[in-house]
Amino acid sequence: LNLRSLGEFGLIERIAGQVADLPGVVRGIGDDAAALTPSPGQLQLVTSDMLLEGVHFDLSYTPPELLGRKSLAANLSDIAAMGGRPRWFLLSLGLPADMSLEFMDAFVGGMLGLAGEHGVQLVGGDTCASRGGLVISVTLLGEQTAGSVVCRSGARPGDLICVTGTLGDAALGLLELRAGRRDGPAVGRHLDPAPRCREGLLLAEAGLPTAMIDVSDGLMGDLGHILESSRVGARIDTGRLPCSHYFLEAAAGLTAEPADLVLSGGEDYELLFTVPPGKMEHLPSALSGTGTQVTVVGEVTEVRGLQLLAPDGSVSMPRHHGFRHF
Amino acid sequence: LNLRSLGEFGLIERIAGQVADLPGVVRGIGDDAAALTPSPGQLQLVTSDMLLEGVHFDLSYTPPELLGRKSLAANLSDIAAMGGRPRWFLLSLGLPADMSLEFMDAFVGGMLGLAGEHGVQLVGGDTCASRGGLVISVTLLGEQTAGSVVCRSGARPGDLICVTGTLGDAALGLLELRAGRRDGPAVGRHLDPAPRCREGLLLAEAGLPTAMIDVSDGLMGDLGHILESSRVGARIDTGRLPCSHYFLEAAAGLTAEPADLVLSGGEDYELLFTVPPGKMEHLPSALSGTGTQVTVVGEVTEVRGLQLLAPDGSVSMPRHHGFRHF
Repeated sequence: LNLRSLGEFGLIERIAGQVADLPGVVRGIGDDAAALTPSPGQLQLVTSDMLLEGVHFDLSYTPPELLGRKSLAANLSDIAAMGGRPRWFLLSLGLPADMSLEFMDAFVGGMLGLAGEHGVQLVGGDTCASRGGLVISVTLLGEQTAGSVVCRSGARPGDLICVTGTLGDAALGLLELRAGRRDGPAVGRHLDPAPRCREGLLLAEAGLPTAMIDVSDGLMGDLGHILESSRVGARIDTGRLPCSHYFLEAAAGLTAEPADLVLSGGEDYELLFTVPPGKMEHLPSALSGTGTQVTVVGEVTEVRGLQLLAPDGSVSMPRHHGFRHF
Repeated sequence: LNLRSLGEFGLIERIAGQVADLPGVVRGIGDDAAALTPSPGQLQLVTSDMLLEGVHFDLSYTPPELLGRKSLAANLSDIAAMGGRPRWFLLSLGLPADMSLEFMDAFVGGMLGLAGEHGVQLVGGDTCASRGGLVISVTLLGEQTAGSVVCRSGARPGDLICVTGTLGDAALGLLELRAGRRDGPAVGRHLDPAPRCREGLLLAEAGLPTAMIDVSDGLMGDLGHILESSRVGARIDTGRLPCSHYFLEAAAGLTAEPADLVLSGGEDYELLFTVPPGKMEHLPSALSGTGTQVTVVGEVTEVRGLQLLAPDGSVSMPRHHGFRHF
């Protein structure tokens, strides 16, 4: 059995058969559109990410199951960064002629596995043939009350800049993968990122962040979006940027500059957010159930632009901000 | 100025600057997710379509403005087929390195023009580089009350099978384009299809269709989806299938079999729906404001399968149903 003999509708049925029913889905896979019951009094959040073979992922070292997980994880991270609760998603696939059914099963299995972990349901999408490599587009819907949604635009001078977890691991993992390594914590961070869904929701519902974004393009680039939307600047204390023990040990042997990976390395999928100083005392209790570390890495300034304060006291103003998409 | 010098975020800003604000958008382009206000008491409808260069469209004869319109039209047609009111959409683009800014401006202009005609707003998406041709993914959200949403699954034996407009024109247009023709009504139907948004909404809100789908893959294939979902069969009177005057004149000179274009030609984006005989009398008044012709082409049967009744009285049961996606 292969994809061609299964056909588009056979493939859709095969996927639909693995989807567990969750509340709110009046009509899922198998109609012209999905029909969903929004929770009363909530805003609908919706985000979309496209992943292209040869641009966003390399099938020579990416297991299909993890690719499936990561394709959904990037969207879960976006809803987390809004402080939302993810609910339903659509998957559109462009499939090369030589794509095997085994690959598809593993890809979909990985994606639906992560969906189950986060209580979200696949409700539709599209499948077609591709002549240019595997094409993946995921659209995720979530919900949150208007009062708890966190945008990029609310940072105010004096707010403290916080980040969950550690930075640079995913970029280190990508370097390791390209050098032939296939395991280890950094490779794991790159191939199977864990979106901070619970943290984003808890922070938002505690009313703590004034602005929030997920670190997908690198700290400097993503902080830049907050600064631009909020019309403020920031000073980052580079000596306080959180790195994993593994990263610090591996950094010694790197050809790349470790600081570049921490400042500009993408795909860590940590949350970067700003909190007024008066609310900082509530941060530990808000996240106490998660075990997730939060580090204060700087402060929002009235003066526009981004200043990097080095441990030796010198200040630089970087021009290059994060990953360039084209 | 080209796309590379503009950059991803410059392109996003350029697009965002052309978007007109409509009600219900708390946060549109420019955050991790869009935040939307659903209408109270309505179901949320959501559909997604992917279009790939070299598979779904050929840039050698497709003007970018019309490609932009058609990419949204396919999704509008899906919401129409659910009886929904379209509201908001996301656009994800994979862009080849040599894509010109002129192309992008025309593409986006066409898409936003059609969006304006239907009162829908672009609220987000994704852009990235592509190494395999232009990639387009559109996700459209719509709304309708639970009582008025029309699924594929409600057709009952005895229901009459109806179709709006005429069939086969888009498939004829594709043949003409491939033969070098660049204008005419059939070419227009292929390049710039008009989704039946108003008709779908009026039919649904009049409570007439028991099942509905849009004809995107061809009459037989799409009727097949209704029959399968509804667990019924159908008899189609092929002599009654509606064709345009242009189609009938051009049919004489075709190398393809005209009946094949009418039965299996895709992308007409007409609505195919089933109506109980007792409600047929309300059909003309429901659509009176639209000027759209509706033709009864057959009847739903308890016996499963699709029977084609020819004008000479002979009956055939076709095996091939519509467009194969891979």
